[in-house]
Amino acid sequence: MRAVEIIEKKRDKKELTREEIEFFVRGYASGDIPDYQAAAWAMAVLLNGMTERETADLTLAMAGSGDQIDLSEVVPVAVDKHSTGGVGDKTTLVVEPAVAACGLAVGKMSGRGLGFSGGTLDKIESIPGYRTDLSIEEFMRQLKEIGLVLSGQTSDLAPADGKLYALRDVTGTVQSIPLIASSVMSKKIAAGAHAIVLDVKVGLGAFMHTEAEARELAERMVAIAKMAGRRAVALLSDMNQPLGKAVGNALEVREAIETLRGGGPEDFREHCLVVAGYMLHLGQKVASAEEGRQAASEALENGQAWDKFKTLVAAQGGDVRYVEDPELLPEAPIVREIPAPRSGYLRQIHARIVGETAVVLGAGREVKGQPIDHAVGIVIYHKVGDRVEAGRPLFAVHANSEADLEAAKARLLEAHQWSDEPVEPLPLFYGVVQ
Amino acid sequence: MRAVEIIEKKRDKKELTREEIEFFVRGYASGDIPDYQAAAWAMAVLLNGMTERETADLTLAMAGSGDQIDLSEVVPVAVDKHSTGGVGDKTTLVVEPAVAACGLAVGKMSGRGLGFSGGTLDKIESIPGYRTDLSIEEFMRQLKEIGLVLSGQTSDLAPADGKLYALRDVTGTVQSIPLIASSVMSKKIAAGAHAIVLDVKVGLGAFMHTEAEARELAERMVAIAKMAGRRAVALLSDMNQPLGKAVGNALEVREAIETLRGGGPEDFREHCLVVAGYMLHLGQKVASAEEGRQAASEALENGQAWDKFKTLVAAQGGDVRYVEDPELLPEAPIVREIPAPRSGYLRQIHARIVGETAVVLGAGREVKGQPIDHAVGIVIYHKVGDRVEAGRPLFAVHANSEADLEAAKARLLEAHQWSDEPVEPLPLFYGVVQ
Repeated sequence: MRAVEIIEKKRDKKELTREEIEFFVRGYASGDIPDYQAAAWAMAVLLNGMTERETADLTLAMAGSGDQIDLSEVVPVAVDKHSTGGVGDKTTLVVEPAVAACGLAVGKMSGRGLGFSGGTLDKIESIPGYRTDLSIEEFMRQLKEIGLVLSGQTSDLAPADGKLYALRDVTGTVQSIPLIASSVMSKKIAAGAHAIVLDVKVGLGAFMHTEAEARELAERMVAIAKMAGRRAVALLSDMNQPLGKAVGNALEVREAIETLRGGGPEDFREHCLVVAGYMLHLGQKVASAEEGRQAASEALENGQAWDKFKTLVAAQGGDVRYVEDPELLPEAPIVREIPAPRSGYLRQIHARIVGETAVVLGAGREVKGQPIDHAVGIVIYHKVGDRVEAGRPLFAVHANSEADLEAAKARLLEAHQWSDEPVEPLPLFYGVVQ
Repeated sequence: MRAVEIIEKKRDKKELTREEIEFFVRGYASGDIPDYQAAAWAMAVLLNGMTERETADLTLAMAGSGDQIDLSEVVPVAVDKHSTGGVGDKTTLVVEPAVAACGLAVGKMSGRGLGFSGGTLDKIESIPGYRTDLSIEEFMRQLKEIGLVLSGQTSDLAPADGKLYALRDVTGTVQSIPLIASSVMSKKIAAGAHAIVLDVKVGLGAFMHTEAEARELAERMVAIAKMAGRRAVALLSDMNQPLGKAVGNALEVREAIETLRGGGPEDFREHCLVVAGYMLHLGQKVASAEEGRQAASEALENGQAWDKFKTLVAAQGGDVRYVEDPELLPEAPIVREIPAPRSGYLRQIHARIVGETAVVLGAGREVKGQPIDHAVGIVIYHKVGDRVEAGRPLFAVHANSEADLEAAKARLLEAHQWSDEPVEPLPLFYGVVQ
């Protein structure tokens, strides 16, 4: 078998065999196949596609390229969730404690933010002392002891995916549904998930801009899960406007805490309950997703989810005083509310612009490894469809300087589009793929 | 300008500007753009194509990436020829002396064989002492003094093409008409050609298997020449069966010598006359290609082409005794004629199989830089359409061992396909693009 023949086969729109895919992934991971061959192959895959079978084989080959965790040793069924990334998406911070509070153990390896899209690790590190670098042994022990873990990905999971992802980033080969699907699923499978709830974001602030693309990705990921003997459900959820109100690390942790305490923005709370409901159903704790939603709602109301969250923070070395009194969390030197420039109905709150503005304020990074500022960010007060009167607060900016604030204000005013006529609110979900 | 954006643009089927193409070629030649980005770009070009304008800009950018020779200093009009490569194609060895004998100076930089396709440099090096490594200065001086040069490409011509060609070879991106066309034309333009006759081979033993592909390549190259202010004609010539009879280095030199002395196989002689006719016409020595053909025919008959060839060999250090007495040229230890296994009409003599068999005998190389054996090869006695009686000589194998001979014999018998019914001979040419 020769790498160039595998490239040519995909170039010529032919289906690769499992052996060919394994040969290519193993060769690339080991360095026998150089970056330039993998780059040509990735472009051929992007332009010519892959069948479901090829995508599943690619996923399993990448999952098998490093350590594979077997969570069966500590939990009867390991349920994971994954979001394809968006703006203001602090769902994990609420869903995981809620699900754990319902008696289903969840151990999650989260990621960092890149570009306009935030990452859970960056958010939770707003809490002083919180460790996101647990070893696999620590991860397993904590999952067994308190039924809840939220840490970073250990570096030995699906190393072939890590290498290919970095290459795709610089060769124009990110936007390929088979490559995105196999990248996500290879990490989840290597991390030991038996069942996965996929939160596939669609809209202006998502990587998938149309419902059709998002559905294709969702279907592909669910098919991979089935071929790999895992259960999966994918929710197509709105990311045209930010989820909840807060965008920025400590600001999002505060909003998550409010929600865990039974409050929080209505859209965000509802989003979390639906995700949690599907997780509880996949984890066989309840008979239906609706019953799971109900159980999660109770866990938010009776304080058990909140208790679980504090237990998690303490277990991972975080200072619990900061979550009990969120006023202690990092706070930007300048906080200013910006009034609505006109009266009307909100027609659009462009999630991507909001996300990019948060990055410019310092809440995110353009390039991997850049330091971030946990304090800065944005609070968007309204949702698409809301009627707002001129002069009423439209959003708040948390910034480090007046110059930053002014630049953010201008971009955010542009992100808000108005209508004189009433506007329909955006749905939370567009569908479920299972 | 960023390389990844240029890759994405081509990925998304958009037309690149001249500035983007120049940026990419310059960056790749200098090493600022790494192989993996060039590989992804080349695959996107292969799959999404390029306009004529983009292809011409790519050609000129590659031609401009190194030295550019100005032959106007020594000749009024520099006419070059280029073959896209085939089996038994020793055309240059006859055409260049014939054209030079008609008073049109020709200086050609030839290449080596790779895979089933032979190379003129390998052939002429069968003559002991013949130098193919002339410096640019030596090239220019000889062109001025005797009006005829046949040497290797100096390494500083179109280095971006050299680098990209090597990358394409290992990334499945060879078979792209814009990339092939720009590769050929960039070297010709950098080498200073004012006019170019392109011999585009089509058929089983060519890189272009169909007339449609060959025509597309021919049209693209002629269009590039026009956009670059050069004149060009492309001939679509048959390469389903070997050209002439001899395949193998010294064997082909012998056949070229026979032809220069007024003999040689009919198909090969006619092919050379047509190519020479177009060269003389493009070089403004005659009023039409037909008149040029006539002049070249006379040069073969009156001995002037043969004299020019000997002058060339002597000028480049070759031992003229070897061409005056071709029996002195390298000869394989085993030479055996194989009889026809049946009577019938020859329906196919598969040029690619013949070429590959010659490589296996040692006449060619699978990988650049491998040594070759000048003595070994094959002589095919017949042409498609010939009637052959069982037991009559079908072909001869010149080999180094009995084992090599037996293996070659088996493959060559398979390369010959038979019919009981009369078969039309193959045409020499399928058309002219100008």
